[in-house]
Amino acid sequence: MAEDKPLSVVTCTAPVNIAVIKYWGKRDEELILPINSSLSVTLHQDQLKTTTTAAISRDFTEDRLWLNGKENDIGQPRLQSCLREIRRLARKRHSGNGNSGDSSSRSALSLAYKVHIASENNFPTAAGLASSAAGFACLVYALAKLYGVEGELSEVARQGSGSACRSMFGGFVQWVMGQSADGKDSIAQQVAPETHWPELRVLILVVSAEKKHVASTAGMQTSVKTSLLLKHRAEALVPERMSQMTQHIQQRDFEAFGELTMKDSNQFHATCLDTFPPIFYLNDISKQVVALVHRYNAHCGKNKVAYTFDAGPNAVLFMLDDTVDEFVEVVKRSFPPENNGGQFLKGLPVGSATPSEELLSAVVRDPTPGAIQYMLLTKPGPGPALVEDASCHLLGADGLPQSSS
Amino acid sequence: MAEDKPLSVVTCTAPVNIAVIKYWGKRDEELILPINSSLSVTLHQDQLKTTTTAAISRDFTEDRLWLNGKENDIGQPRLQSCLREIRRLARKRHSGNGNSGDSSSRSALSLAYKVHIASENNFPTAAGLASSAAGFACLVYALAKLYGVEGELSEVARQGSGSACRSMFGGFVQWVMGQSADGKDSIAQQVAPETHWPELRVLILVVSAEKKHVASTAGMQTSVKTSLLLKHRAEALVPERMSQMTQHIQQRDFEAFGELTMKDSNQFHATCLDTFPPIFYLNDISKQVVALVHRYNAHCGKNKVAYTFDAGPNAVLFMLDDTVDEFVEVVKRSFPPENNGGQFLKGLPVGSATPSEELLSAVVRDPTPGAIQYMLLTKPGPGPALVEDASCHLLGADGLPQSSS
Repeated sequence: MAEDKPLSVVTCTAPVNIAVIKYWGKRDEELILPINSSLSVTLHQDQLKTTTTAAISRDFTEDRLWLNGKENDIGQPRLQSCLREIRRLARKRHSGNGNSGDSSSRSALSLAYKVHIASENNFPTAAGLASSAAGFACLVYALAKLYGVEGELSEVARQGSGSACRSMFGGFVQWVMGQSADGKDSIAQQVAPETHWPELRVLILVVSAEKKHVASTAGMQTSVKTSLLLKHRAEALVPERMSQMTQHIQQRDFEAFGELTMKDSNQFHATCLDTFPPIFYLNDISKQVVALVHRYNAHCGKNKVAYTFDAGPNAVLFMLDDTVDEFVEVVKRSFPPENNGGQFLKGLPVGSATPSEELLSAVVRDPTPGAIQYMLLTKPGPGPALVEDASCHLLGADGLPQSSS
Repeated sequence: MAEDKPLSVVTCTAPVNIAVIKYWGKRDEELILPINSSLSVTLHQDQLKTTTTAAISRDFTEDRLWLNGKENDIGQPRLQSCLREIRRLARKRHSGNGNSGDSSSRSALSLAYKVHIASENNFPTAAGLASSAAGFACLVYALAKLYGVEGELSEVARQGSGSACRSMFGGFVQWVMGQSADGKDSIAQQVAPETHWPELRVLILVVSAEKKHVASTAGMQTSVKTSLLLKHRAEALVPERMSQMTQHIQQRDFEAFGELTMKDSNQFHATCLDTFPPIFYLNDISKQVVALVHRYNAHCGKNKVAYTFDAGPNAVLFMLDDTVDEFVEVVKRSFPPENNGGQFLKGLPVGSATPSEELLSAVVRDPTPGAIQYMLLTKPGPGPALVEDASCHLLGADGLPQSSS
């Protein structure tokens, strides 16, 4: 089989990101160009990551794709967009390269080969944690490594899933909406690296009994068509919020960062409600989390915790490391874990805390057992990375998924 | 006691109204001047009304107030505003009246007397049905009758509770926001009488297990201070919606009336969510009602039912009379009544209907028993009225509440 010409294979990982200035609505569905800029925090891959292995071989007879071990349709248009773009960049790079360097000629040859791709998450896809962003970022990063493409890749990732472009960098990342019709200037840029704010922590509350939601692609389309508030937000409000948020991050001003994060999450969900028919992503448990955070901050006299919600009911909370132990205890008291065998607190270690009775009586109201399925503690982290360890490949020497997946 | 000079007493009734273009936010807290115009439907008093008796006597030693049979503080500022305004108008009318007519001189004399007021609703205050609007409209109407004041009274009612001004008329009523600082032009006007659209029906779904909500006065203040979307709505969007809604009503175009009603309710709740801290009035049951209405309309291929929600989770649904029987059955299937002894369907009679299996399977999803406490069917109705029947007075000859209340 592939004995004389072994498989070319690379494995990469990419992170999830959570927007603090939200992206909602496209001005171009094909190229995935947004109606406003957005800004996100890249989460650490120790807790949440996608791993993707991409391989080419002259023996492969067709492009194939496996997601979490199950073969999937590789023909879906957005995946094809990414594949086509990377191959185009590889071809361009090769033809522009006068010196027929070794890697360059190899990749030129390999452009005719079929590709096998396998991808998996270290977290449940159902958790509603924007797995498509990490997935497409990882795909594009891996394909780029495989074909020897360098340079600006966020524009390619964007064509897979809009928010994927922000997962191409670590730390704090803005997606500049751009102006041009071809989308060349609609790219992600790092605002600050993951080392910039070492005290920042991210606590994800996974809400139980999640039902099906309006898919974000369809939701956005309806919002753009029907919500006059979204139009106003995108045109008149987000530009100023982008510069405010950038400044708050640069100054590590948690009070202001947290407040704007909460306000922008609320405004995004407000535009969903202003959509016709209206879209609801927050449920009664989400609202309880919102109320809890506001009571906690009111008791503390400042914003020590900030929530943000994407297109689902799970809460993503920001706080500084000195708040984690106490607030985790507050969450446990408010949403007592049900004895369902699973671990309630995942991710980074959390110390024990004994909040004062005064705090608890002011903040904990109507405890709702089992409403939160589990919590995951993480922090800002780096962007996509190449995995050097060959034992981590998700595809075996035969180009098929390893039995482990 | 009051034997030689008997008690002067009047009893009036006033209706509840439900806004289809929502009022949210004041530009003047004292005078209750709104940041945008609004438009409402006055509901029929056969189902929902406030009754108020006002009496004066030279023997009364202080102003007193009873609400639903219980003595209440008459000193609350907004009630005092209404009392002061009506007395001022009475004084003005008297002094402007050169001829000392009998009634005029009597009312001039009586201006020095103390007043007793008793008021009650024929529906539970807790139902969240804007009882303050009916209450203040009724108070102002009764005081005006008592003191012989005529003419524009909505401006006085407005100073009791903003939306009360709209309860001063029957049918379809707009509250013109006005421009002047003294509020003289911030008044209610009838857009069409209650006879204009005889087929229109209003079905109120009272949601169970209602919790305490943010009071609307406080909520509005926070929204005006913090929601940029509310500002945009009030300034840029409502003016056009007011003229659209007026036109839909004049043309009795249910399709368009219903759609704009739903959109405006959603937009109002969107601005609540954009408030900081956010305000949520809709709960998961409200959202189920919203989804049910959209599924029903989608199945029918047009808007046959329209929802609107005020500052609480109860749904107010508009539909034409030919839709009532079927839709009531759909509600019963979706929210099966729990056997709690109470009547599930109140108000106007509803016929039986047997919706097709096709309709039911398309529209009814995940029935939630007990989620709706009861339904009340009503229709547009007339404005405040004087009750001629002396046996209806809530105050007895001694000026104290009758034992019946």
